[in-house]
Amino acid sequence: MKIALITENSQAAKNTVIHEALTEVAEPLGHQVFNYGMYSAEDKASLTYVMNGLLTGILLNSGAADFVVTGCGTGMGSMLACNAMPGVFCGLVIDPTDAFLFGQINDGNAISMPYAKGFGWAAELNLRDVYGKLFDGERGLGYPKERAEIMRTNRGILKDLKAVTCRDMLTVLKTVDQDLLKAAIAGERFAEYFYANATDQDIVGYLREVAG
Amino acid sequence: MKIALITENSQAAKNTVIHEALTEVAEPLGHQVFNYGMYSAEDKASLTYVMNGLLTGILLNSGAADFVVTGCGTGMGSMLACNAMPGVFCGLVIDPTDAFLFGQINDGNAISMPYAKGFGWAAELNLRDVYGKLFDGERGLGYPKERAEIMRTNRGILKDLKAVTCRDMLTVLKTVDQDLLKAAIAGERFAEYFYANATDQDIVGYLREVAG
Amino acid sequence: MKIALITENSQAAKNTVIHEALTEVAEPLGHQVFNYGMYSAEDKASLTYVMNGLLTGILLNSGAADFVVTGCGTGMGSMLACNAMPGVFCGLVIDPTDAFLFGQINDGNAISMPYAKGFGWAAELNLRDVYGKLFDGERGLGYPKERAEIMRTNRGILKDLKAVTCRDMLTVLKTVDQDLLKAAIAGERFAEYFYANATDQDIVGYLREVAG
Amino acid sequence: MKIALITENSQAAKNTVIHEALTEVAEPLGHQVFNYGMYSAEDKASLTYVMNGLLTGILLNSGAADFVVTGCGTGMGSMLACNAMPGVFCGLVIDPTDAFLFGQINDGNAISMPYAKGFGWAAELNLRDVYGKLFDGERGLGYPKERAEIMRTNRGILKDLKAVTCRDMLTVLKTVDQDLLKAAIAGERFAEYFYANATDQDIVGYLREVAG
Repeated sequence: MKIALITENSQAAKNTVIHEALTEVAEPLGHQVFNYGMYSAEDKASLTYVMNGLLTGILLNSGAADFVVTGCGTGMGSMLACNAMPGVFCGLVIDPTDAFLFGQINDGNAISMPYAKGFGWAAELNLRDVYGKLFDGERGLGYPKERAEIMRTNRGILKDLKAVTCRDMLTVLKTVDQDLLKAAIAGERFAEYFYANATDQDIVGYLREVAG
Repeated sequence: MKIALITENSQAAKNTVIHEALTEVAEPLGHQVFNYGMYSAEDKASLTYVMNGLLTGILLNSGAADFVVTGCGTGMGSMLACNAMPGVFCGLVIDPTDAFLFGQINDGNAISMPYAKGFGWAAELNLRDVYGKLFDGERGLGYPKERAEIMRTNRGILKDLKAVTCRDMLTVLKTVDQDLLKAAIAGERFAEYFYANATDQDIVGYLREVAG
Repeated sequence: MKIALITENSQAAKNTVIHEALTEVAEPLGHQVFNYGMYSAEDKASLTYVMNGLLTGILLNSGAADFVVTGCGTGMGSMLACNAMPGVFCGLVIDPTDAFLFGQINDGNAISMPYAKGFGWAAELNLRDVYGKLFDGERGLGYPKERAEIMRTNRGILKDLKAVTCRDMLTVLKTVDQDLLKAAIAGERFAEYFYANATDQDIVGYLREVAG
Repeated sequence: MKIALITENSQAAKNTVIHEALTEVAEPLGHQVFNYGMYSAEDKASLTYVMNGLLTGILLNSGAADFVVTGCGTGMGSMLACNAMPGVFCGLVIDPTDAFLFGQINDGNAISMPYAKGFGWAAELNLRDVYGKLFDGERGLGYPKERAEIMRTNRGILKDLKAVTCRDMLTVLKTVDQDLLKAAIAGERFAEYFYANATDQDIVGYLREVAG
């Protein structure tokens, strides 16, 4: 899986700790990790939690990423922004059991975590455990497994509902505040990672145009 | 504030405990609580977490409720479904500090809580504390207060983004699976509470039509 | 390691779930698990949290067990009772990170967990993770490892302090309320497990006498 | 009530935050707060978690304090050290519900909290809520109240057990490593607070002698 890491401005200083935990867990499991920043509090390109959501929508809908790991101080803002986007199902995950249940029951494509609230000493241990529960083995198997079928059905109904409530991503990109959009894709390595991995040519084309 | 309580089918048996905690906290603070069920596991009208989301969208967009308290086993499914709806900003809240920060920073209009995962003995104490943090005093003041302005700004940007990504509620109601919609408004007391409180006549009109 | 499981009366019905999680994790790691009960709420021999503590003291000081897994509704009563005993260092453990840090930093010989408060659906997943963090690999290595030496030193000082504050176990057994003692060792399989494993002949001798 | 605050060396920098939260909650409720330090990481007198326990034992057994609020990185070391002392019943408290249940069910005389693990942004909110649950209103009333009597009985049995397992405080003071003892009472304001409040003349006399 292609896993994208996106860090919000208030927690930019923790990007290294998060990235390290994520790669140490996910890469040996065969996943690729793309760190879209912010990389430090001093980055020129600053990502608010709203931009985290927009960027998550871009990465997932374009095929540039299969899963997004993001967050903010409490995790709530990034989660709200992600879930505002078409095709994004972003869990708020705090502990390993959350991660496991979200993976097996909801089988979403993004998580937001709190990187300030409750994030104290040794929090990197919890990050590792959370990533292990999410990225080791198959997701969407249900828990308990006897209820897998009903859980799958409900996921499908939710997906259909969201397809009704949300406009498609290209329309969103064209109608959203274009300054917000430019800021969301202004990260230092966005171009390098995004254009190498995205498969939706309409989104790619539009973003090339926007980025000038 | 008009607060609506919505309980998902797997946790229907806890509706009474939740309703009791909610009314004991919210009513003395001057709020009204409307219990939209499910009331017990035996209710004729069954609400899945997807329907919770759709119903939340209906209540908030129609003016029938100012705030929705919902949830499911882990809180995740209901949260995802709520946040798929236009104009709904639903936090996943686990402890009183979550509730306070969500109220002050994100100032959303719905919360989803886990009523099975982590919900053990004495969980009613936590419910009361969570409701107190949400419904006592003004929300949206920021925390810390020095950052109120930037927090307000980001909320506005998120709202604008969601207005772009989501279709309006009436369109959603007309295009969503009509059986899902009928099921979401089939609760025993829906008609009584909804029509007495909703102010959006287009939504009211369409639902009267659907309900036949 | 010989791991003893002790369950308090209010949570006796969960003994099977706990025992299953514990054996599934600990036995493949080469440990032995001894289930001292209670086995069900209907057991003739009832263990209060105070008796949990006394029994923990007996098992650890006699050599019948190397580690005790116990608990009660909140975990607090059993923890207090365990830590009242000579030579017992019992952590209150709630999540996997607690378990890991307790194992690496405090390197105690018992844990108490809450089996009612916070113990909801899927809590067996958390049990497994906690046991994994405790029983897989070496304990007492410090975290972070650079601080291992100072952590070891403090553990030694705590052990010395407790040796001063507490009377030895045999004296405790002889002076404690003898009815409480009899009740603490009245479990159905106590004799079978204890006498086969205990190595302190004075304690063994005294308990044989008491048990009549 | 006389509430003593004791902070371990690794968390000394947080003494101000903790003290502020504690006084803001406890003083309006009619309690007195005595800050026994450490006051900063640079204090001449350094308190390890083991010394926290010894000092807690001194304050509670001498009558200098009715309740002790302490902790360390995970809360575990201080809790273990406190509970090694005669007459000390120290809970490990993480959230407000823990605090409430410990106060009502166990009615101990000390709490230890984690000030590093899980202690992130906005943790001062949780401190305030915890202190409110502990210090507002009567403790020991049981929860639920119907079980108050059996809870009181068990507390009495635990107290009796601990009286059997532990030596009296004066004996502990005389036999413990005297350098450890001197270090535990070396804090800048120990003499000022302790001698003004302690009522046990034997302990007072011995500590005057030790302090030289």
